[in-house]
Amino acid sequence: MQDIARRAGVTKAAVSFALNGRPGVSEPTRRRVLAIAHELGWQPSSAARALSDGRAGSFGLVVDRPARTLGLEPFFMQLISGIQAELVRDATPLLLTMAEDQAAEIALHRGWWARRVVDGVFLVDLRVDDARVPVLAELGMPAVVIGAPLGTGGLPAVWSDDDAAVVTAVRHLAGLGHRRLGRVSGPGRLRHTAIRTAAFERVTAELGLAGTTIEGDYSGGTGAAATRALLGAPRRPTALLYDNDVMAVSGLTAAQGLGLAVPGDVSIVAWDDSALCGLVHPSLTALSRDIAAYGAHAARRLRQAAGGGPVADLQDKAPSLTLRGSTGPVPRRVAGTGERRGRAPE
Amino acid sequence: MQDIARRAGVTKAAVSFALNGRPGVSEPTRRRVLAIAHELGWQPSSAARALSDGRAGSFGLVVDRPARTLGLEPFFMQLISGIQAELVRDATPLLLTMAEDQAAEIALHRGWWARRVVDGVFLVDLRVDDARVPVLAELGMPAVVIGAPLGTGGLPAVWSDDDAAVVTAVRHLAGLGHRRLGRVSGPGRLRHTAIRTAAFERVTAELGLAGTTIEGDYSGGTGAAATRALLGAPRRPTALLYDNDVMAVSGLTAAQGLGLAVPGDVSIVAWDDSALCGLVHPSLTALSRDIAAYGAHAARRLRQAAGGGPVADLQDKAPSLTLRGSTGPVPRRVAGTGERRGRAPE
Repeated sequence: MQDIARRAGVTKAAVSFALNGRPGVSEPTRRRVLAIAHELGWQPSSAARALSDGRAGSFGLVVDRPARTLGLEPFFMQLISGIQAELVRDATPLLLTMAEDQAAEIALHRGWWARRVVDGVFLVDLRVDDARVPVLAELGMPAVVIGAPLGTGGLPAVWSDDDAAVVTAVRHLAGLGHRRLGRVSGPGRLRHTAIRTAAFERVTAELGLAGTTIEGDYSGGTGAAATRALLGAPRRPTALLYDNDVMAVSGLTAAQGLGLAVPGDVSIVAWDDSALCGLVHPSLTALSRDIAAYGAHAARRLRQAAGGGPVADLQDKAPSLTLRGSTGPVPRRVAGTGERRGRAPE
Repeated sequence: MQDIARRAGVTKAAVSFALNGRPGVSEPTRRRVLAIAHELGWQPSSAARALSDGRAGSFGLVVDRPARTLGLEPFFMQLISGIQAELVRDATPLLLTMAEDQAAEIALHRGWWARRVVDGVFLVDLRVDDARVPVLAELGMPAVVIGAPLGTGGLPAVWSDDDAAVVTAVRHLAGLGHRRLGRVSGPGRLRHTAIRTAAFERVTAELGLAGTTIEGDYSGGTGAAATRALLGAPRRPTALLYDNDVMAVSGLTAAQGLGLAVPGDVSIVAWDDSALCGLVHPSLTALSRDIAAYGAHAARRLRQAAGGGPVADLQDKAPSLTLRGSTGPVPRRVAGTGERRGRAPE
């Protein structure tokens, strides 16, 4: 720096401003400093900042889902949007990438931490036995788990009460007279799916209802297929609960394609209330939560964790039920006799 | 590295694997190497890689839009999704952040390049006089412009023919008998808005049609407000063209809220054909393009540019018109007399 300053005829501070792309030097000076630095073999690199305060200045998020499906998933986009809204307050960028599986994600985290590419990471889609948790603990890498209160191995978590949300939805349907419920879940290996499935089984048993869960993968394709399987059963359910909005929208179309009226023949409840739920006909009753706020809370906690402070778990607000046109009383004939209705008249 | 290798009793290669988080060493060895490295004052930082091959291993994208609105904008999510789909092929992450304005974005680019945090950047929302272009050219920072063929100052660009798309949409509406068209545009300062507006004025003049453009900002709020302004005019348009899907969906609701039937009283065409266009009633005729492929093409070109190779512009496929329920023939009374229709009967 001193060499560069001497040759450029400026102060060391001016060299630092020029090399770090900060204001405080004129454009001609910046160009002269960079040219001299280049001549002297100065190598621009993250080294400059990482060596000065040991921080990378960014956080990371790895999503184990096919990249092209990311734009179709309102939940992730809202979450990333909320994380950004918080991180932008101190100009911290988010390093975002996809991985094929947890092994690939773990390799990324190891590399990022060893080279201090990020100061910490968000963990999403926590699994029942999550291989990432012990590795991050061992590395001492700051991390915040988004979405699950259990199995976090001591990592701070931001989560909402999935159990309470299932109870709210099932009680509402039971109050409308429904006795046979179907549910299309997310992948069973995910921790929050396991929590929701356990809650669904417990509360349907408590209320004396029949409850069947078919596993999906959050995609529209599995939502439609699971819906056809549930509605094709001899004593088909009169109400369906979906673990995300994309599967619920596809389920609505699938039910209507079978000639069933919604909610006349079958009621539908979605999880996560995106714009999709309001745009379809009938609009979908949904478990709503402020996903962007959820992301912002996680970002604030990751900043604390990276700063070395102790970070407590945050139980965010439980989702609440937004009532729309897709839920209604159980069909009369079904209520009275358990008889299976045929194709609804047009 | 040699010191660490000697004290750990392993090869230098093993030390490199351990420090870089790569496979090839056992967990106990990795832990021992990291402990010794730490003892010797080894500082994990991006320096390691940046100094070894001079590359950061990531690309950057700065979006000058409010962070919380990002998740509501299908275009951006599809674009990011497509960029990721390509970058994930060589495990290159995307550094994503928001900036308040172009000055803030430029400061980010300068800092990223000076510290070699990224190997190149994507430029979106190119403005008519874009302040970023000369700065990136001066820095010699690899960059690819997404969305505009002009004003790129020699930076490679991936773009689609906005002019041709406007002509397609206007000709289709003229063929249905419409003589008065309204358009709700994106921000006028954006290069592709200027291209679309010029095309709209030219083609409506050529065909002898009346054409009015009101500027929006891509949000649902401005889409609805502009729609009400256009439809409240004495000789209101019988067909509306929107610069994005979010404004078109809000415009549909606004028109229906005025008691007008779509397409009976007014036809609607959206730009960018997201899931939203298919879910509303009537579903929206839209200018469709594969936005994810567009992002992937840009990512491939940025990789080439960062590799030092020459990169040619790519003119991607022009959007094509997907016909759905929101467009139809001009209303008869309007066609015959130019008379203004009152509130449509329910």
